Amino acid sequence: MRLSTRDCRGRMASARVARLATAGADGKPHLVPVTFAVVGDLVVTAVDQKPKSTTDLKRLRNIAANPAVAVLCDQYDEDWTRLWWVRADGRAEILADGDDRSGAIASLVAKYPQYEVDPPRGPVIAITVTTWSGWSATAG
Amino acid sequence: MRLSTRDCRGRMASARVARLATAGADGKPHLVPVTFAVVGDLVVTAVDQKPKSTTDLKRLRNIAANPAVAVLCDQYDEDWTRLWWVRADGRAEILADGDDRSGAIASLVAKYPQYEVDPPRGPVIAITVTTWSGWSATAG
Repeated sequence: MRLSTRDCRGRMASARVARLATAGADGKPHLVPVTFAVVGDLVVTAVDQKPKSTTDLKRLRNIAANPAVAVLCDQYDEDWTRLWWVRADGRAEILADGDDRSGAIASLVAKYPQYEVDPPRGPVIAITVTTWSGWSATAG
Repeated sequence: MRLSTRDCRGRMASARVARLATAGADGKPHLVPVTFAVVGDLVVTAVDQKPKSTTDLKRLRNIAANPAVAVLCDQYDEDWTRLWWVRADGRAEILADGDDRSGAIASLVAKYPQYEVDPPRGPVIAITVTTWSGWSATAG
């Protein structure tokens, strides 16, 4: 069954990890797992201190070239009646500093106690969600 | 720490769910969770009977326009020393019928007992992996 926008937003807000897909000027999709927070119709994530490979900031270069992104949360279970997923499609903006960035960092620290001692120091990616979509195998 | 190609392939082969990113001619990334199997340097997934929304075959239209895809598996844990992810970047081909499709379906049925009674009846997406990449917070 399809999920309502309200249900999509709620399930994503409660999820602990999401996957962020971007695509560069060359059209190649790029995909990374991210920690994130939902703030109204914004999804925010930040470049934090978890080790990155040298190519890992490709997400930022892709967004600079093409702001269209997708964010996905899903639940897998061997009982396939328990599967669900939620996707937020939107347009991303990179916040290198300023109050909007600080507010996003505060939302991430509030969600993840792991960030309390060491909040993300890199840029924030703020995604204005244009379409929520989601599916659940059951109404539960 | 970065993971070796061998380790990436092994972790992905054992994972139960992945996320498939495609991008259409318009450059917009699209993202769905998928069941899948790793067969050498191929990652295969199939359109199965799990309910789809009417727009869900966008993945097939995107691949027809642009075969570049990315597949991601990750482990989330509240203990962030246990995080890891593996990504396969490659080129996708759609197999509507034939022996290659049958072989892929057999791999999926062998991995997922859920498919035994009702194997996927839709097209197979066969991804030739060009780059394996992965990261683990610890060497474990």
